Amino acid sequence: MRILLIGASGTIGSAVRKELEARHEVISAGRNGADVKVDITSTDSIEAMYQTVGKVDAVISATGSTYFGSLLKLTPENNDISIQGKLKGQINLVLLGLNHVHDQGSFTLTTGIIMDDPIVGGASSAMAGGAIRAFVKAAAIEMPRGIRINNVSPTVLEEAMQTYGDYFPGYEPVPASRVAQAYRKSVEGAQTGQTFTVY
Amino acid sequence: MRILLIGASGTIGSAVRKELEARHEVISAGRNGADVKVDITSTDSIEAMYQTVGKVDAVISATGSTYFGSLLKLTPENNDISIQGKLKGQINLVLLGLNHVHDQGSFTLTTGIIMDDPIVGGASSAMAGGAIRAFVKAAAIEMPRGIRINNVSPTVLEEAMQTYGDYFPGYEPVPASRVAQAYRKSVEGAQTGQTFTVY
Repeated sequence: MRILLIGASGTIGSAVRKELEARHEVISAGRNGADVKVDITSTDSIEAMYQTVGKVDAVISATGSTYFGSLLKLTPENNDISIQGKLKGQINLVLLGLNHVHDQGSFTLTTGIIMDDPIVGGASSAMAGGAIRAFVKAAAIEMPRGIRINNVSPTVLEEAMQTYGDYFPGYEPVPASRVAQAYRKSVEGAQTGQTFTVY
Repeated sequence: MRILLIGASGTIGSAVRKELEARHEVISAGRNGADVKVDITSTDSIEAMYQTVGKVDAVISATGSTYFGSLLKLTPENNDISIQGKLKGQINLVLLGLNHVHDQGSFTLTTGIIMDDPIVGGASSAMAGGAIRAFVKAAAIEMPRGIRINNVSPTVLEEAMQTYGDYFPGYEPVPASRVAQAYRKSVEGAQTGQTFTVY
């Protein structure tokens, strides 16, 4: 398959790439250091990316900024970081990408454990994850030409524990390589409308 | 209690008002025909509403526009109707309202069945509902001064079947008076972080 991987340089993106590139052509996209440059907060940038890349069999999003911080400091303005990034950014990858995905292709988006099992400071990010999960479930029943759509919801990564571990007390970390298997299941399997949790 | 009810003139809002006004002081807010005028897509309008109303014990949102239409016609622009309305509008009622709610007060937001059980044309609205549900669950663990937050997720209303029934084939409608009980549970009960489904 020809797979477009947005956010390829992140911890999850790198693991997904490693998992998939043995069997597939993986085109990386991201803000820096990728085959194609893209800023998913800009619809123009998303359109340009799809024009450059051409048709693909699968689109994987392992990206999307979110705001972390105390609820008491959460303002409409900094909540917009999550809305523009993880929420609208990922949904617009689907809305603007439908015509660039082959029949029976797929979209795989990224959510995260805190929508189910919240942490302090995570309300804005949880909101974005919950939006993506519900969108995926609803959009799946209307996708044209056999195109599928799923999301992967990872817990905190072993690779991120040194940086983020203190925000996830008592959460069992998983290796990014295990999370990558959920993306493989979404791309190479046949399910649609699903949330593949890795926790 | 002193209760601020936004969206008081809608089918759900009217039923909630009828249920609560026997025991409480209910102040209605909305675009038209309410005690206080508010447009929840504007943070200035929300701020002005809270200034006018003063402190309350409970804020209920039974409002928030969403976009309905085929996924193939869903654009980033019309998806923004749901984001500005049901999603950001309701969340901003919380973020901007925290200082206007008494200790041990509550917020009650509105989601809907299609985030769990999708209908054709409902992806954008489902997205907004999923965002609210996850926000509520996560925000609940950080609310100050004993303030609680829940959401009510109704199925299609009996009162709306003539207009919307065809979009909900096989969905069992419920009377708005039954949905109003879930809002009562949220306001008068003690639970927080919950999604009270009425289906």
